[in-house]
Amino acid sequence: MTYEFDADTAVVEVEPGIFRGNVHDRWNVGPVPNGGYLLAMAARAIGAKLPGRELRTITAHYLRPARCAPIEIEVEPVKEGRTYATAMARLIQEVADADGVVAKREHARVLATFASPDARPGPEHVRGTPPELPPVEECLRGPMTDAVAITHRFDTRYAPETGGFFAGNLSGRAELRAWVRFVDGREPDVDALPLIADALPPPILNVTTFRWVPTIELTVHVRARPAPGWLRCKFESRFVFGGYLEADGEIWDSAGNLVAQSRQLMSAGTE
Amino acid sequence: MTYEFDADTAVVEVEPGIFRGNVHDRWNVGPVPNGGYLLAMAARAIGAKLPGRELRTITAHYLRPARCAPIEIEVEPVKEGRTYATAMARLIQEVADADGVVAKREHARVLATFASPDARPGPEHVRGTPPELPPVEECLRGPMTDAVAITHRFDTRYAPETGGFFAGNLSGRAELRAWVRFVDGREPDVDALPLIADALPPPILNVTTFRWVPTIELTVHVRARPAPGWLRCKFESRFVFGGYLEADGEIWDSAGNLVAQSRQLMSAGTE
Repeated sequence: MTYEFDADTAVVEVEPGIFRGNVHDRWNVGPVPNGGYLLAMAARAIGAKLPGRELRTITAHYLRPARCAPIEIEVEPVKEGRTYATAMARLIQEVADADGVVAKREHARVLATFASPDARPGPEHVRGTPPELPPVEECLRGPMTDAVAITHRFDTRYAPETGGFFAGNLSGRAELRAWVRFVDGREPDVDALPLIADALPPPILNVTTFRWVPTIELTVHVRARPAPGWLRCKFESRFVFGGYLEADGEIWDSAGNLVAQSRQLMSAGTE
Repeated sequence: MTYEFDADTAVVEVEPGIFRGNVHDRWNVGPVPNGGYLLAMAARAIGAKLPGRELRTITAHYLRPARCAPIEIEVEPVKEGRTYATAMARLIQEVADADGVVAKREHARVLATFASPDARPGPEHVRGTPPELPPVEECLRGPMTDAVAITHRFDTRYAPETGGFFAGNLSGRAELRAWVRFVDGREPDVDALPLIADALPPPILNVTTFRWVPTIELTVHVRARPAPGWLRCKFESRFVFGGYLEADGEIWDSAGNLVAQSRQLMSAGTE
């Protein structure tokens, strides 16, 4: 069996450094493919050029909404060293004008650094703790709606005090805490973390209602390989002003370890 | 009078998209130029190609330590839209081998998005507050040491409970809070924020002593133009394990507004 995530992020190297994939509509938010989904696809393409290494940090700048259509991912190696390997990727789709003339358009630019997958010796100093969440069965099940196809891909259980906004009960605090796992039983891994980092609604929806909160830039740090089972996620926006907001994410695994941190800059402008 | 920062980050476009600058040793940490300094220089080069726009988010992946020598910054426009403009930059220095053969080596790869400088209408929701700091005169003056030349560029006043590590009194918590301003009276502005985001020592030095905590990746979000006067800065590492750590920064201005958020991924490995 091929899981949805693996099928929909699959890429094939058609020329050296040129990968082709297909943006599937299963990860849409409205008519637009989710940015974390595109980031996960880019990470897979980059990772294919860096065997034996694992993602540590990846940043995407989103240029324009992608479409559910074939996508080309051009990977440019930047530096491959003993410890780290850095690469850039361009996410490109073709668009035809009224006369059928096809042009290439870039939808996102990505920069990533991979490293050896082994944990290295070093000091330990951990001050954070996993997000506060009641047991899964006491949480609010996130609704699955056809208008937001990505909601069908995850089993999402919200801390009750943060999950009422779906029913119009805004908490007044731009924070979401939730258990998250793939609905088809796929276990979390490093490949999935860039997607998970962008898979929940913007936490600002607990404060005010938007139609559209586009991501300008998303950075994900991978800190450990997730253990199997539910992920515990927390996303929060503390600074919403001037037409912009950040959303900070922490993803913890079932063993109680932080596996990823994320931060995105989004537009909150009403223009 | 030309201030140190402006003199040392000056770049000249020698061919379309190719800028030359000079990496000055005034911003060194040991023998190595500070990463935030290089980032500020890159932002100036990119900004020169995007008149009328202001930095919003910038990410650097550091590939190898730079040297105090001429530097070339190649700016590649990625997309210039109505609202946002995105560009990439390569930071390149020349190195000569024993036979005098000169090769170009890339030291950092940068991705940035600029936007209109105007604040845009939108919701306000701010939960953070400026870092807790006693009055300037009650804080600990950061020592200026020739081995860390960058310490001579700033007047830095630490919250006493976070600034004892210079004298060997580690707080045990990887956090620094400090008032910061340029020593030569230059006022803070958007250009300076990428540097300020990396201008203090790694907060992990309050927990354990390292000789070298290299930055892998640094992202800075510019949230507002700083008002003149002291900046209030806070840098913290909450997750030190597996050979890596993050350092999260907040920079607030004298008017009590958040002007930048930063996050970097650093190596804490002892290999």
